[in-house]
Amino acid sequence: MNFVSGIPQPATDIRALADSGENARLHGVIHNIRNMGEFSFVILSTAHDVVQCVYSPEFSQFALQDIREGDWVEFTGRAVKEERAENGFEIRLLQAKVFSSPAEELPFAINKKVLKLNIDTNLNYRPLTLRNPAQRAIFRVQEGVAAGFTEYMRSQGFTEIHSPKIVRAGAEGGANIFKLDYFDTVAYLAQSPQFYKQTMVGVFERVFEVGPVYRAERHNTSRHLNEYIGLDFEMGFIRSMEEVMEMETAMLWHVVSYLKAHYAPELSLLKARLPEVAPMPVVTFTEAREILIARGRRPGKWDLEPDDELALCDWARETHGTEFIYITRFPAAKRPFYAMDDPQDDTFALSFDLLFRGLEITTGGQRVHDYAMQVEKMKRMGLDPADFESYLMIHKYGMPPHGGLGIGLERLTMKLLGLKNVREASLFPRDIGRLEP
Amino acid sequence: MNFVSGIPQPATDIRALADSGENARLHGVIHNIRNMGEFSFVILSTAHDVVQCVYSPEFSQFALQDIREGDWVEFTGRAVKEERAENGFEIRLLQAKVFSSPAEELPFAINKKVLKLNIDTNLNYRPLTLRNPAQRAIFRVQEGVAAGFTEYMRSQGFTEIHSPKIVRAGAEGGANIFKLDYFDTVAYLAQSPQFYKQTMVGVFERVFEVGPVYRAERHNTSRHLNEYIGLDFEMGFIRSMEEVMEMETAMLWHVVSYLKAHYAPELSLLKARLPEVAPMPVVTFTEAREILIARGRRPGKWDLEPDDELALCDWARETHGTEFIYITRFPAAKRPFYAMDDPQDDTFALSFDLLFRGLEITTGGQRVHDYAMQVEKMKRMGLDPADFESYLMIHKYGMPPHGGLGIGLERLTMKLLGLKNVREASLFPRDIGRLEP
Repeated sequence: MNFVSGIPQPATDIRALADSGENARLHGVIHNIRNMGEFSFVILSTAHDVVQCVYSPEFSQFALQDIREGDWVEFTGRAVKEERAENGFEIRLLQAKVFSSPAEELPFAINKKVLKLNIDTNLNYRPLTLRNPAQRAIFRVQEGVAAGFTEYMRSQGFTEIHSPKIVRAGAEGGANIFKLDYFDTVAYLAQSPQFYKQTMVGVFERVFEVGPVYRAERHNTSRHLNEYIGLDFEMGFIRSMEEVMEMETAMLWHVVSYLKAHYAPELSLLKARLPEVAPMPVVTFTEAREILIARGRRPGKWDLEPDDELALCDWARETHGTEFIYITRFPAAKRPFYAMDDPQDDTFALSFDLLFRGLEITTGGQRVHDYAMQVEKMKRMGLDPADFESYLMIHKYGMPPHGGLGIGLERLTMKLLGLKNVREASLFPRDIGRLEP
Repeated sequence: MNFVSGIPQPATDIRALADSGENARLHGVIHNIRNMGEFSFVILSTAHDVVQCVYSPEFSQFALQDIREGDWVEFTGRAVKEERAENGFEIRLLQAKVFSSPAEELPFAINKKVLKLNIDTNLNYRPLTLRNPAQRAIFRVQEGVAAGFTEYMRSQGFTEIHSPKIVRAGAEGGANIFKLDYFDTVAYLAQSPQFYKQTMVGVFERVFEVGPVYRAERHNTSRHLNEYIGLDFEMGFIRSMEEVMEMETAMLWHVVSYLKAHYAPELSLLKARLPEVAPMPVVTFTEAREILIARGRRPGKWDLEPDDELALCDWARETHGTEFIYITRFPAAKRPFYAMDDPQDDTFALSFDLLFRGLEITTGGQRVHDYAMQVEKMKRMGLDPADFESYLMIHKYGMPPHGGLGIGLERLTMKLLGLKNVREASLFPRDIGRLEP
C-alpha cells in the first residue's frame, strides 16, 4: 500500500544546461566515440539534441571501454562553455551508467547528420532510420504543422471533433475504399470525415479534426499514401466559398510562423525554406486551362493532371512571386454530390484546390445545405437518397450555409521540407506493397 | 483572377457583447419562440450559447411570422443588460435573415436543456440530438480532456506522433481484432499503438498519441466501444514503473484544472462534479484480492471483474477519501508479452490499472527493453519471435528502460461527467449492432 502524488520526473533540458557550469544528468544513445589521444569525444544523441561530451581520465570516473557506440546510457557530467561545440557547450563526463547495449551491429550508420539510404532500405529499417537526427527532425516539424493548425483553429472558435473511421458507406464514392469484416456484416474505412464534419457544423458551427483517412488507391506514386493524416475543418454561416479560402490562407501563415517560433533547430538541420507570407492568387479552372494552353500544354476538360499542377505553380511563381495558387470552380460533374453548384453556371461547382510547390495539398469548397437541392443533386448523379438517410437528416432539419476542406498532413510536410517522396513524411507509411513495419 | 490574403471572418463572441450595448450580428438556430403579448422571446442557440432575444414591433424591423422554430438565421440586434436573462443580457432584435428552414418537423424536441430520450433513439437521431445544449456540452468537455492531455504531455517534453492503424498483426493478441482486405493480402486494424509508441521511444524518448483504437469485442455493455479514441503515452529512461504512474497522476490533475479554467459553463450545465486533487492509493493485485475478500467478495486469481473494480473504488473512497486507485503487479500470465516481469517475482508483471469511480480507465506498465529477455518471454508465451521481426529491431539494436499507458478518452469523459453509458461520450459510437449514423 502506497501513494502516487503526481510528481513526475521532468524531461532533461540540455539547452538549459549550456550556461550553468553545473553537474547534470543526461541520457540518450551514444552515436560516436572518437579517440583524440589525450581525451575522447563521446557524441550523445538525446531526445532532441546531439551533444558533444568529453571523456578524459583526468576527470572521468569510469573506464572508456565501459561504454561503446549504440549504448543507451545515463551520463553525469559538468556543462562547460565551448564555442567550437555545435551547441556552444560540451559536457565533461564524470559518471556513466549503461542501460542497454545493441545485441548486433547496426546494419548501416545512422549517426551521420543526413542519412543516405535508398527509400526502401530507409522504410524497411524504419525503427532504426528514424533515430537519425535529420530523419527524426522531419517528424518534429510534422508535429509542429499539426500543432500550429490546431492552435489556429481553436483561436478562431473551432471545436475539435473525433469522427468514426469505421463506416457503413464511403463519403467520396468510387471503388477506392477498404472493406472490412464487421462482426456479421461488412463495413468500410472512412475516405474522409466529410459527412461527420458537416453534421457537426449543425452542432458547433465551426469544427476541425486531425485523424486518419483511408484511400484504397492502387497508385504507387511519390505523392500517394493509402493511410494518411487528414487536417480537416468545416465552418457554418459562410457568405461564400472564399471565406473558407481566407481561413485556410490565414491558418497556413500561422503554421509557418508557429514552425519558425518552435522548430528552428529542426528547420535548420533540414535546410528547409519556408514559404513567404503573401496573398495567394486565385484562378478559375477555366482560367487555369487558358494559362496552360498559353504555356503550350493541352489540359483535359474535367480535371488537372500532375504536370498541369506543376505548370500552374510555375506560372504563379513567375507572374506573382508566390508558391501557392488556388484553382476554383471545377466542373461539377467531377466533384462529389455534396459540392454546391455555382449559381451562375451549374456545370461548375463551388469547389477549390490549393496547389503548393507543384502539388495539390487541399480540396475544399462550399457544400449543399438545402434539403431539396441535395436530394435533387443526388438523383441527378445517379445516387439513391435512401442510401444516405442519416446524412440527409442534417439537411432535412435545417443547416446553415457551410463549407470546408481537407489537407493531407504528410503532403504538406513533404512540400514544406522539400522532400521528394511523401513516404519520407510518414512515420510508418502504408502503400500497396507496404504493411510493415 | 483574384487574390486571397488570409483575412478570415472571426467567430462571433456572444459573451463579449454582454456589456457593449452595441449593435451586433449573431447567428444560430431558433430553439424557441414564446409570445408574451406585447413582445416575444426568441431563444437562439449559437455555437456555444443559448441566447435570449426579444422581438417587439416597437424596435424589430421585420415580421415575427418571417421566422419560426428550427430556422437557421442571422440576427442583427442590440445587446442590453438584463439580469433576469441567463447570460445577464438579452438581444433586442432589429433584423433577421433566414438561411434555411426545416423541411419537416423535428421528431422530438431538442430545445430543452436536458434531452430525455432513451439511448437508442438518442443514437439513431445523433445528428439532431447532438444539437441539444447538454448533449453537445459533453463533447466540448471531451475536447477539453484531449486538449488538457496534449498540453500537459508537451509541457513534459513529449512529442506527438501518428502511428498507422492498418497493421500486419495486432499488438495485443487474441481474436478481438478486425480483419481487412488490403489489396491482394490481409491486414488488421490496430488494437493499440503499442509497438509504434515503443519504437518511437528510441527516437524521441517521450512520445504521445491521440488516435483511434479498434477492438472487435462482441461485448455489448455500457462500458465498451469497438472504436474509441486512445490517449497513449510512452516514456524512456524510467527508473521504475512508478514514474509512469506519477506522470499519469500529474496529467490527470492538469486535465481537471484545464477543464475548470476553460469549460466552466459546460461543466455547470452538465452538473459535473470533478474529482478532488489528492494522492492516489496504490495496492498490488495481491493486496487488492485481500481487500476484496475482507469485503466478502470472491475475487478471481488472474484478473479483476467489473464488480471487483466497483468494490475497490468503494474501499478507496471509504478508507482514503479518493476516487482513484491504482492496482499494480498483475499476474504475468494474463498480461501481454511486452510487459516486464517483476524482478522480485516473475509470476507478476510490472503492470498497472487505474480505476476511477468504479471503472478501469487505464492500463499501463513497464516494458521489456532487453533483446534476449524479450525473445525468451515470447517463446515462453508460445509466440514465434520471427513473427515480430520489425518490432524486435528496437530491442536488438538497443532500447532504454521504458513504460507507458493507454487511456480511453470516452471512458474518462463518461466518468468525469457521471454518464451511465460510454456511448453517450462518443459522437458516433460503433458497437456490435451500430455502424450508423
